Amino acid sequence: MSLNPSTAGLRPVPGARSALAERFARVRARTLALAAPLSAEDQCVQSMPDASPTKWHLAHTSWFFEAVVLGPHVPGYEAFEPRWHHLFNSYYEALGPRHPRPQRGLLTRPLLPSVHRYRAHVEAAVEQFMATADDATWDAVHPLLELGLQHEEQHQELILTDILHVLSCNPLLPAYEPLEQPALRLAASTPPVAWVQGPAGPVRIGHTGEGFGFDNETPRHTVWLQPYRIADRLVTCGEYADFVEDGGYRTASLWLSDGWALVQSQQWQAPLYWIAPDNPRAPASQWQVFGLDGVKPIDPHAPVTHLSFYEAAAFAEWAGARLPTEAEWEAASELPGMRQLADQAWQWTRSSYDPYPGYRPWTGAVAEYNGKFMVGQVVLRGGSVATPPGHARRSYRNFFPPAARWQFSGLRLAKDGAC
Amino acid sequence: MSLNPSTAGLRPVPGARSALAERFARVRARTLALAAPLSAEDQCVQSMPDASPTKWHLAHTSWFFEAVVLGPHVPGYEAFEPRWHHLFNSYYEALGPRHPRPQRGLLTRPLLPSVHRYRAHVEAAVEQFMATADDATWDAVHPLLELGLQHEEQHQELILTDILHVLSCNPLLPAYEPLEQPALRLAASTPPVAWVQGPAGPVRIGHTGEGFGFDNETPRHTVWLQPYRIADRLVTCGEYADFVEDGGYRTASLWLSDGWALVQSQQWQAPLYWIAPDNPRAPASQWQVFGLDGVKPIDPHAPVTHLSFYEAAAFAEWAGARLPTEAEWEAASELPGMRQLADQAWQWTRSSYDPYPGYRPWTGAVAEYNGKFMVGQVVLRGGSVATPPGHARRSYRNFFPPAARWQFSGLRLAKDGAC
Amino acid sequence: MSLNPSTAGLRPVPGARSALAERFARVRARTLALAAPLSAEDQCVQSMPDASPTKWHLAHTSWFFEAVVLGPHVPGYEAFEPRWHHLFNSYYEALGPRHPRPQRGLLTRPLLPSVHRYRAHVEAAVEQFMATADDATWDAVHPLLELGLQHEEQHQELILTDILHVLSCNPLLPAYEPLEQPALRLAASTPPVAWVQGPAGPVRIGHTGEGFGFDNETPRHTVWLQPYRIADRLVTCGEYADFVEDGGYRTASLWLSDGWALVQSQQWQAPLYWIAPDNPRAPASQWQVFGLDGVKPIDPHAPVTHLSFYEAAAFAEWAGARLPTEAEWEAASELPGMRQLADQAWQWTRSSYDPYPGYRPWTGAVAEYNGKFMVGQVVLRGGSVATPPGHARRSYRNFFPPAARWQFSGLRLAKDGAC
Amino acid sequence: MSLNPSTAGLRPVPGARSALAERFARVRARTLALAAPLSAEDQCVQSMPDASPTKWHLAHTSWFFEAVVLGPHVPGYEAFEPRWHHLFNSYYEALGPRHPRPQRGLLTRPLLPSVHRYRAHVEAAVEQFMATADDATWDAVHPLLELGLQHEEQHQELILTDILHVLSCNPLLPAYEPLEQPALRLAASTPPVAWVQGPAGPVRIGHTGEGFGFDNETPRHTVWLQPYRIADRLVTCGEYADFVEDGGYRTASLWLSDGWALVQSQQWQAPLYWIAPDNPRAPASQWQVFGLDGVKPIDPHAPVTHLSFYEAAAFAEWAGARLPTEAEWEAASELPGMRQLADQAWQWTRSSYDPYPGYRPWTGAVAEYNGKFMVGQVVLRGGSVATPPGHARRSYRNFFPPAARWQFSGLRLAKDGAC
Repeated sequence: MSLNPSTAGLRPVPGARSALAERFARVRARTLALAAPLSAEDQCVQSMPDASPTKWHLAHTSWFFEAVVLGPHVPGYEAFEPRWHHLFNSYYEALGPRHPRPQRGLLTRPLLPSVHRYRAHVEAAVEQFMATADDATWDAVHPLLELGLQHEEQHQELILTDILHVLSCNPLLPAYEPLEQPALRLAASTPPVAWVQGPAGPVRIGHTGEGFGFDNETPRHTVWLQPYRIADRLVTCGEYADFVEDGGYRTASLWLSDGWALVQSQQWQAPLYWIAPDNPRAPASQWQVFGLDGVKPIDPHAPVTHLSFYEAAAFAEWAGARLPTEAEWEAASELPGMRQLADQAWQWTRSSYDPYPGYRPWTGAVAEYNGKFMVGQVVLRGGSVATPPGHARRSYRNFFPPAARWQFSGLRLAKDGAC
Repeated sequence: MSLNPSTAGLRPVPGARSALAERFARVRARTLALAAPLSAEDQCVQSMPDASPTKWHLAHTSWFFEAVVLGPHVPGYEAFEPRWHHLFNSYYEALGPRHPRPQRGLLTRPLLPSVHRYRAHVEAAVEQFMATADDATWDAVHPLLELGLQHEEQHQELILTDILHVLSCNPLLPAYEPLEQPALRLAASTPPVAWVQGPAGPVRIGHTGEGFGFDNETPRHTVWLQPYRIADRLVTCGEYADFVEDGGYRTASLWLSDGWALVQSQQWQAPLYWIAPDNPRAPASQWQVFGLDGVKPIDPHAPVTHLSFYEAAAFAEWAGARLPTEAEWEAASELPGMRQLADQAWQWTRSSYDPYPGYRPWTGAVAEYNGKFMVGQVVLRGGSVATPPGHARRSYRNFFPPAARWQFSGLRLAKDGAC
Repeated sequence: MSLNPSTAGLRPVPGARSALAERFARVRARTLALAAPLSAEDQCVQSMPDASPTKWHLAHTSWFFEAVVLGPHVPGYEAFEPRWHHLFNSYYEALGPRHPRPQRGLLTRPLLPSVHRYRAHVEAAVEQFMATADDATWDAVHPLLELGLQHEEQHQELILTDILHVLSCNPLLPAYEPLEQPALRLAASTPPVAWVQGPAGPVRIGHTGEGFGFDNETPRHTVWLQPYRIADRLVTCGEYADFVEDGGYRTASLWLSDGWALVQSQQWQAPLYWIAPDNPRAPASQWQVFGLDGVKPIDPHAPVTHLSFYEAAAFAEWAGARLPTEAEWEAASELPGMRQLADQAWQWTRSSYDPYPGYRPWTGAVAEYNGKFMVGQVVLRGGSVATPPGHARRSYRNFFPPAARWQFSGLRLAKDGAC
Repeated sequence: MSLNPSTAGLRPVPGARSALAERFARVRARTLALAAPLSAEDQCVQSMPDASPTKWHLAHTSWFFEAVVLGPHVPGYEAFEPRWHHLFNSYYEALGPRHPRPQRGLLTRPLLPSVHRYRAHVEAAVEQFMATADDATWDAVHPLLELGLQHEEQHQELILTDILHVLSCNPLLPAYEPLEQPALRLAASTPPVAWVQGPAGPVRIGHTGEGFGFDNETPRHTVWLQPYRIADRLVTCGEYADFVEDGGYRTASLWLSDGWALVQSQQWQAPLYWIAPDNPRAPASQWQVFGLDGVKPIDPHAPVTHLSFYEAAAFAEWAGARLPTEAEWEAASELPGMRQLADQAWQWTRSSYDPYPGYRPWTGAVAEYNGKFMVGQVVLRGGSVATPPGHARRSYRNFFPPAARWQFSGLRLAKDGAC
């Protein structure tokens, strides 16, 4: 059976309708649960243009189902409020004009209960569609439903990273106190790095075709790797503290030029949420870190997070190593002994976010999902404490501008040559 | 009886304690009533650096009593939460460091109910002070209590002007719908302007010493006026629409240089909240205006508001007239026939905000109340629909930068010479 | 005889044609002499939007005669190069579009010799006009010629202030070394201030009608002064150094709010061209100052210059005094004992630049000469070492934004009350 | 023979001393010849932070020999003027503090003749070194001399691109009129594109080790290519004009997201130096282009230049093709039939500027030459009309930010798959 063009080139996802319906209910409920610890005020404000309010995430993930699934594919569907399309479109030029991104925090209206009703309205319509669509329609449309859920999972992570930034701007440094606490798992000690030998010569990378994948992971293709070694674990806060102590932020030769300019103009001295000893915001005699659970002493055994690419690259230089390329990361990810792959921190790679050879974006509105951002950004691999369980995979390509620090972004070292 | 130096040079306010206590209760309750139509979200966000969130106004007006009255003058007073002083100090260098003004909208915490408790805590302490202070203390401190109420009334007006700006940024253009509706009073027709002849030669202006006055209204002093005439009423929306229609915003020769630069860079085409015909935000065939009660057709008989000084001056030039100086305004304000003095719109004058001859600011922390802003601003006289009844007076000097448009600011014309 | 309207309301200037012709030759030659010490490169660049290149001044002062005198009033006059009108119009909206002010430094062409030819072309045409115009035309036009010379004298001062800023941006700190050295006159010691009692009650200020005056000095009118005293001399560098030493730049309570914000954001620590001890740009053990004659030790007896209004006002506050108003300055300027009135430094007053009562700008293009700048600026009185001898007068109103520091601007103190 | 570590990892360049001496004289003379058509003013100003003044290029290329060769390796060398090191260091953190890049245009001093003397001083010292160095020193140092010449050739290209930008800012649009005219070669007609089949599977790219190469071209290594075709020639102005006519600059779906934002904010409508019909700057009925030889009609057969990466990528999308990767470009560059490789325009590739696998920068000060810029930029391959003959090579990696338009940058198309 050939795919309906309306599904834009997405692959059908094997499995029964009932499984997708269950997953739909689970994902949507998890989004609300993530917002539950937050007041209406917390959910409304925007602390910087890159980060969006929680309420906006709640509404935007519903708009996506309306704009991509319900509107085009469910005859007779009535939008909850047509004027909201303008408010909750993120960046889809093909789907009409948009409220400016830096002004999302000014949308005190619709109020939160109205957004909750919007979510319920969309959910009811999707559930009815899942229950009643004929088989041909189902075959054609269900990949877009799955895309909607993958999209919502991405915004679940952003809900956490964005609210953490909001709370960090408050001198009172309030904790998020999540329903399901995405805490960094504590270790009693840091084992020494074990260097894992990666494969050399031609290797295959990219999405295998099994299960869901984004267009930017395709096509699967051959790359040629030189011999390299990769660390079995992430860099820890203790190791990063040594870099700080050693004057890492004062040593120009360790930094890329743009990074050094930011170190100076922004007066970076440590990862984004680290709090120096004797800082009046949270006085203490040692380094502390602000996180979803508030202010705590730095755990030297925990993976360091909230680094920009520039900081990750400077640390690697200081450590006499380098960042892995994304192909090296992916090729090594299935080797035995590799740890902390996708559950702790996104890992900056030394790969700019370029298209794979032969890449074609999906078609229609979702053509804008990934392809149009393929310049000026850097790839991160893995997954973080804030990533929904099961969301990421070995071929997953996350990407952010090199100066971005508000994600749970850390690093894993690599080196040239054989062990 | 000599004033306690702690009262900073303020004049004692005649009247019984009970009268001030009643006034205190009334003013504080009115502030809350103004916020009542707004959701927690509405009260939290900040739409531009010049405007503050409602919640911040609620807290700041309580901080003022804490910082100026309770802390220095009531032994044993315990601050509700000492860490909040940093959050709710507006601009008093003498009272310690402050949260940056452009980030007031990021203060999702404290939550609104906590701010309400803060208000109650402060009110209880002030009420107890009013009931129990000995006479000497009362004499010394009650002028600061009165200042706190005058200060709170100023913020009542800002609550309205600031929330109007927030709501105007929302594409849904929601109405404020106030408890006590401060609507512009409608007139069935616009009477022609009557020109009132002002006094010439030496006249006395400034605060008379009766009742409360700000330091910037003093000392009362002589100025010498040349013969002038002043309009008995404000310029109307209908008259201003004629200016717009006549190409006022496209005619450089009508404008001050800085104003013309703003017309071009900001693409000003009408007063701040006017909505042109066929604007997709609120489609209509005629000009409309957004106000506290939502979107309505322009009332040609209502005073025009939400003008910058530049627009007021350009209109006056177009009309073959000029703006009155603040001394002319004050001298004319008690003449018979003068209308719409203080209940419709603040009136831009042709006077920069300079100190009066012999001006000395109050002492102590409240020295910063007015004096340090005396450069780069323009005086407005009168009062607006948003000004608390009884707050303003003939000698009252309001002031804003010449580009400010979010106040209820309009104009009254003047001319040189005799009628 | 009634004035031709084309002369825009300017007063006729008594005196023979030959006197004006001689003055024309003298002023034009002086402009060139001021540029003579400078290379073509020096004369081309622009160090900030507020300051213009020397070459631009040379051309603009010729354009002014073309646009205001020769083009409108001399039949058959052929412009030297019509395309240059766009380049050398400064801000006259009525005279067509203009090259953007911040890009004047990009005009490497026309080359300097071409601009010299432009000057000669204009001069020949003006001289021919002066020699051949019939009496009626002369009566009508010669006030505009005088305006052109007054205008050129203003630009002579700007040539010096602007090139000083250019040279100060060069780490080599080269000296201007002028042909006629406008050096501050050195004094062996600083006499104590003598306080001169100013007149109180009604006084007349404004241009008397004798000789040339700008429109902004008119009409002469009555103001009412309160008793005041004014210093007989300017504040010296030595006195200002005491203010610096005493922490003046670290004491918020001395400053106007906008000034304090600039102190912090711009890290002001002394007057614009002062060089702190041990500054690597010009190492020395004491404070130095960069001037037209290069780097020299501060002369404690010389008037302090290159202050913003904010610094002048903060110094006055620190000194227990205040700045005089412009009316006070003018009224005192003819009292016996007043020194350093117009030959050392412009003196910031405590008067915003507002129109005089009854002020009407000239008409036509020159209406833009002064009137459209009457907001957001502060009046300076007197004259400086860079002012052409004979240019200023008692009623002269100079004006700059309160943050401007690149002029030869200092201060004279005043106090309330009687001696 | 092992290389002296002071030569930083550069390869020795085979050939006699005399050959290098001749080349030195030739390169240095060519730099001066490029500046010869320009006045001192032309050579002094800076039109944007990215572009430097000609005079600065003249001095900086001499500073480079002083800082990298003469100072460290020639005992007893006396710097021409030690204070100039601060002025003419470009970005070498290891070589001390620097004059800020955006202020290079304020350096009216040293005057041009002094910079000419500086060049002569350095040249004499280098020539003496070349004539007298013992063999061991020669072996160690001559690679740095060669680097100095390669560096100077890069600045020769920048002299042309930067002065073109200066001249383009002048409303008079003056021509550069070069001594040796680097004009685009005109063709009588545009032949249709021939698609050349590139190699697939493993290919070797990077510097071969023969002759000079920059560190960023190394190490030579294997990459794996998918089947692709590449155009034998560049895109022409005529083809690009079709894109413009077809609404290319108004069609969001063709653009990368950052590019579309620039199209809107900068109002891009055509390549940087194209002049639309009826533009008042150079009125004509057809499209024109400003170049080193002034304003001319667009030549439809000439390669289009002065494109940003965003425009190149949008054109390729519109044309149903894509940009080649840098590996594809290099692999195809030696195939028969490939034209316009290195003599017309730099060609944007679809490769971000990342390090090659195993890349190590040179050591010492020249470590900063290339490595620290390896993020946020895009690779261009080939060479342009402004590139010194013989400077570029197949493995040469030029790089600029994706928004850069002031270079002679165009594009060559590619497609997936076999012919």
